[in-house]
Amino acid sequence: MERDGVVICVASKAGFCFGVKRAVQIAFDASEKWKEVYTIGPLIHNPQVVSLLEENGIRVLSSLEEVPHGATVVIRSHGIPLDDLRKLRDKGVRIIDATCPFVKKAQEIVSNLVKKGYLVAVVGEAEHPEVKALLSYGEGKAFIYKDIPEGAKKIGVVSQTTQILSDFFDAVSRIMKGCEDFTELRVFNTVCQSTAERQLECKNMAAKVEVLIVVGGKNSANTKRLVEIASDCGVKAYHIEVPDELDVSWFFDKKMIGITAGASTPDWIIDAVVDRVKKLTGGIVQDGRVQRDE
Amino acid sequence: MERDGVVICVASKAGFCFGVKRAVQIAFDASEKWKEVYTIGPLIHNPQVVSLLEENGIRVLSSLEEVPHGATVVIRSHGIPLDDLRKLRDKGVRIIDATCPFVKKAQEIVSNLVKKGYLVAVVGEAEHPEVKALLSYGEGKAFIYKDIPEGAKKIGVVSQTTQILSDFFDAVSRIMKGCEDFTELRVFNTVCQSTAERQLECKNMAAKVEVLIVVGGKNSANTKRLVEIASDCGVKAYHIEVPDELDVSWFFDKKMIGITAGASTPDWIIDAVVDRVKKLTGGIVQDGRVQRDE
Repeated sequence: MERDGVVICVASKAGFCFGVKRAVQIAFDASEKWKEVYTIGPLIHNPQVVSLLEENGIRVLSSLEEVPHGATVVIRSHGIPLDDLRKLRDKGVRIIDATCPFVKKAQEIVSNLVKKGYLVAVVGEAEHPEVKALLSYGEGKAFIYKDIPEGAKKIGVVSQTTQILSDFFDAVSRIMKGCEDFTELRVFNTVCQSTAERQLECKNMAAKVEVLIVVGGKNSANTKRLVEIASDCGVKAYHIEVPDELDVSWFFDKKMIGITAGASTPDWIIDAVVDRVKKLTGGIVQDGRVQRDE
Repeated sequence: MERDGVVICVASKAGFCFGVKRAVQIAFDASEKWKEVYTIGPLIHNPQVVSLLEENGIRVLSSLEEVPHGATVVIRSHGIPLDDLRKLRDKGVRIIDATCPFVKKAQEIVSNLVKKGYLVAVVGEAEHPEVKALLSYGEGKAFIYKDIPEGAKKIGVVSQTTQILSDFFDAVSRIMKGCEDFTELRVFNTVCQSTAERQLECKNMAAKVEVLIVVGGKNSANTKRLVEIASDCGVKAYHIEVPDELDVSWFFDKKMIGITAGASTPDWIIDAVVDRVKKLTGGIVQDGRVQRDE
């Protein structure tokens, strides 16, 4: 398909964030130093990167009970529940901590708030590993924000680091209204800078493109949120993991196409998606990130 | 006018709150002990009570420059700006502090927050004496919430003690959205309990009556808010200071009449209003507060 004047905007903030880049590097380094390197659950929410890690000897276990004695465990970017960390320590395995430093910071905030007598509300998805770990640092005094006890007086609030900022603020409002007798509400904005920037760019992009391709793991929370943001702006957004999922019909009659990606999407996949979209539409890539091969 | 089945509901939370009762008592006590007792501005926002105080020798000055040497100054329930307090101390006059303890608590919170490096947002009316005093405790680092600098990172928030709770929460939401890069937002709910209870009762009353009489000083912030709350609930509310303002036409065809009053409205005025409404409508007083003469 060849068409005149088709423009493909690629987000400058697409792809690996600091925490993911760091975790992947730590895992590769560990696999070079030691045999039997494991993660409990995938290191990051991107199956293609996880496959590559597995090819390099980093195996994914589904529970810590499976970790063999003497092995090395890389704690994944989302962190690990405190109890699991304690169990790992008791097992006497080598622990390499690849928790994102921003997630770590949020864990410390939860822990400190509870020590100071606050009940803590965590704004995020109850089933997400980052949130499960965050809650565990409350040692029974942290709750998914919807479950914060009504009569709470001193309330701390933190967010999953990849939350949509406006959703976080809305949740804080709901907490205030639900616990209106509170004496103090201490809100820590733990949405990480790179998430906020990526989401803002996505929003701006959604205002100018006719269709948006969002590249990232299907179970990646931050990728799903980019789709949500675009949809909220009234732009059709497609969530794909790999270029093969692209469908030429999505681009029919479209002159402005956007491409962005989640924090755990590697450059090579983004580049491949851009290439495929170029081929499918005959479009020209405008501004945004510089591709590795350009 | 005599009509069957007219019911007059009198709010149980109407009238003097703890802070006002205390301030009036302190002023009367001071006037018994000392000559030349002054307040700078009215002690409370109720002209009838202030007249009574004046009859007992407690005079209202419009500025602290007018305070004669050797006099006694009663600091009013709303508090006093820090600079004015310092000037009074320098003048060597006797200072009797009748600041409401809940207002005092809010002042201390502002002061502590600023010492800990927070910029403080005060939710309230810029021109209200309580708010002016609260701001002064920030020593340049406290702002009316609408003026909080956009780039603020550590933000404290307090409320005028008589604020409508839902307006306070809405203001907190606006602060979050206006300073979305904040790292910490520490909200102290300084809306006093008695304000919250009175407002809640007013809201519940507005849901069942056909007309509401709100008794209190025309410049009383908390009284004006009761009128606002009733109006927001779609009930016609009349703000009066004294029974003479009542108009029989307000009650035409009405079977359910509500009466409430602000925190600075004395019992004798509320009782007189209830009596007059009974006479005008032939209504029977139901539940609510027990009148002194019943």
